[in-house]
Amino acid sequence: MSPVQAVPDPSPELLSVAVGLRRAATDLGLTSDDQRRQALLAMAESLRAHTGAIVAANRRDRENAEQSGLASALMARLKLDEVKLEGAITGVRQLAELADPLGRRQLHRELDDGLVLERVSVPLGVVGVIFEARPDAVIQIASLAIRSGNGAILKGGREAECTNKAVMAALQEGLAATSVVPEALALLTTREDSLALLRLEGLVDLIIPRGSNELVRFIQDNTRIPVLGHADGVCHLYVDAEADPDQAVTIALDSKVQYPAACNAIETLLVHADIAGIFLAKAIPAFQTEGVRLLGDPGACALGISEAAADEDWGTEYLALTLSVRVVDDLEAALEHIRRYGSRHTEAIATRNVSTAERFLRSVDSSGVYHNCSTRFADGFRYGFGAEVGISTQTLPPRGPVGLEGLVTYRYRLRGDGHIAADYASGARRFSHVDLEG
Amino acid sequence: MSPVQAVPDPSPELLSVAVGLRRAATDLGLTSDDQRRQALLAMAESLRAHTGAIVAANRRDRENAEQSGLASALMARLKLDEVKLEGAITGVRQLAELADPLGRRQLHRELDDGLVLERVSVPLGVVGVIFEARPDAVIQIASLAIRSGNGAILKGGREAECTNKAVMAALQEGLAATSVVPEALALLTTREDSLALLRLEGLVDLIIPRGSNELVRFIQDNTRIPVLGHADGVCHLYVDAEADPDQAVTIALDSKVQYPAACNAIETLLVHADIAGIFLAKAIPAFQTEGVRLLGDPGACALGISEAAADEDWGTEYLALTLSVRVVDDLEAALEHIRRYGSRHTEAIATRNVSTAERFLRSVDSSGVYHNCSTRFADGFRYGFGAEVGISTQTLPPRGPVGLEGLVTYRYRLRGDGHIAADYASGARRFSHVDLEG
Repeated sequence: MSPVQAVPDPSPELLSVAVGLRRAATDLGLTSDDQRRQALLAMAESLRAHTGAIVAANRRDRENAEQSGLASALMARLKLDEVKLEGAITGVRQLAELADPLGRRQLHRELDDGLVLERVSVPLGVVGVIFEARPDAVIQIASLAIRSGNGAILKGGREAECTNKAVMAALQEGLAATSVVPEALALLTTREDSLALLRLEGLVDLIIPRGSNELVRFIQDNTRIPVLGHADGVCHLYVDAEADPDQAVTIALDSKVQYPAACNAIETLLVHADIAGIFLAKAIPAFQTEGVRLLGDPGACALGISEAAADEDWGTEYLALTLSVRVVDDLEAALEHIRRYGSRHTEAIATRNVSTAERFLRSVDSSGVYHNCSTRFADGFRYGFGAEVGISTQTLPPRGPVGLEGLVTYRYRLRGDGHIAADYASGARRFSHVDLEG
Repeated sequence: MSPVQAVPDPSPELLSVAVGLRRAATDLGLTSDDQRRQALLAMAESLRAHTGAIVAANRRDRENAEQSGLASALMARLKLDEVKLEGAITGVRQLAELADPLGRRQLHRELDDGLVLERVSVPLGVVGVIFEARPDAVIQIASLAIRSGNGAILKGGREAECTNKAVMAALQEGLAATSVVPEALALLTTREDSLALLRLEGLVDLIIPRGSNELVRFIQDNTRIPVLGHADGVCHLYVDAEADPDQAVTIALDSKVQYPAACNAIETLLVHADIAGIFLAKAIPAFQTEGVRLLGDPGACALGISEAAADEDWGTEYLALTLSVRVVDDLEAALEHIRRYGSRHTEAIATRNVSTAERFLRSVDSSGVYHNCSTRFADGFRYGFGAEVGISTQTLPPRGPVGLEGLVTYRYRLRGDGHIAADYASGARRFSHVDLEG
């Protein structure tokens, strides 16, 4: 998608889907924990029952994709065989068992005699999801949405059209016998609708893009609806003068090569000048063994890195086996580099000096700041959230790996008995502001 | 401001101010609760010491405004005399006494032996504030920002230029003797800078507009930086069939006339058909006594309202002594009306039937839903937050009246001892995910 593409007005059909979805979402917001849990189990059961049809639909999609010459990386993501589907179904069942994110009382306060305020977690309303190839994303997002009491309007890639339709049919058939109406989920099929979705402010409360950085950036630039996601993940590891060199090499390798296409993989290694010689002597051959292309600043090149990094390298997310390396004079220079080039995703320090580590952890304003461990831990499952909506690099909450809490908000409920503001303005009554229990 | 105005690129001067501010904000984020508290007391003391200069500067601004024929409502907001300044100084001192919003541990979890995750509240970084006439806003916002560890870049209206400069000089002089550097606050003076502020993504983390709905909407449409605010406040009171008619009249009056220019005042009254006759017989004369112009749908007009409401009235925020009135058949019709025309700010129901009230409180997705009390309670001070950043009508948190929590976010800190993700992917190690105390 290119930013010059015009975002069209929503068609009457899309508006009617969105209005119906909003109404269904209101009813969904009134369901109990148990009703939503049962709905997820019914969705899982229906997916299982329709495994044959879903896998066959996916085979058709892949045959079409092969004929049109889809890149092999995309082909791999498009694939949804019995094994992958079974995994996704297990995910739905696990989500059913997660604690209900709704109805949690976050504040309970008497404002005055008989005037009581509470703040309670509630669903967002309707989430709009735009994703590329991966058809298993439909299953994951639909179940996350229903678990948290939200309607979902989904738009998948054209390549996965048959699969997405088969999956959605199974999910809706599963819901039909439950307290959650099937209309709480909708699948968009045309490209025009996908773009017009970005214009449904007031009807859609959050957009979740699942795909390339370009997709995310295009969406962020073309909607007034909040977007949960991240366009960039330029993560850093700083190897301090007082690092354990062997441990630092292990962490650096894992942070880069364990899954280089992930947003939480490092793109730049910052090395303190005092340890650069010892560290790079170990790190360079280790990276070479793993097939990592190293690009260095003059300091790093003087110590054995053969290729020079260009200026634009420091801000580049390679998402591949390429790593830029810079030798810095001290912690301050490392902090300054991260401030300038980082994307506020995840940064780590390797050091045995606890007070240096604490200074790093307090000074770097990324959503994740780590000491002596791999940046690859930045992930909702690894954090123990049970499910992941996505990773957000915005500064405001929710940031970092986001679990179900990214799909809920809160509402203030105030109950009185004829209380009016004029009595407090005149001084006839005064606020007590006493926090109540529970 | 009109949307056709181009938002200019930031000037080199503005960029340099913003980069300096970001650095100052990083240091500010490292200060202790007590250091920030002392900084606020020093700001208050300096304002007191410079009362003469500030009041004199304000007199100059008002003389200039009078000559250029400023509207009288704006003149009133522009005024900053000794009494108003003393009130603002008291506000700064009170803010110093509020609990520190920073450093709160929201999550503490062992992921594995020696690998411990915590989530801690931290400042946002830098807030950008654009406000019209009111010079006391500089004092309020600057002290909210410093209390919560954030840098602030402020742009006030041209009418208040002399006052704003005098206030800022006093605030910075106060900070000079404290642990918070004066560079944590910056005042922009040109209109170009004000617009270019909207382009400082990555350097400014949140924009807070304080002014007209048009200002807020313009800002929302012209920046990728998150905006805390609300463009509309179309609030409703629904008078149910089982309402106490006298109490409902009292609540309706307070919700409309206690301060009609406020965003939490009601614009539309929805009345159940079964009570409309009795209720309107009492309400119409009561509103007339208060000088409220009433516009009715056919049902309301049949019961004594003389002027007919046009279609666009239902979505209009009058901010004045005008109220639209509609007779509805039942609760569902009221809910549907609110869903269609409301701005998700604050809505109230008047009823003696608790289960009807609960259904309303659970079904309306506004940030505030009230039972038997005035919508005018939607306010940070009345909620007991001590200070208010603003009121947000977005769905995502923070929504509704926002206290200091609107100026903080959180960060995940992970501390390990050489832990790498590959060990968990291979099954060599397993996550424990044990929540720790405190």
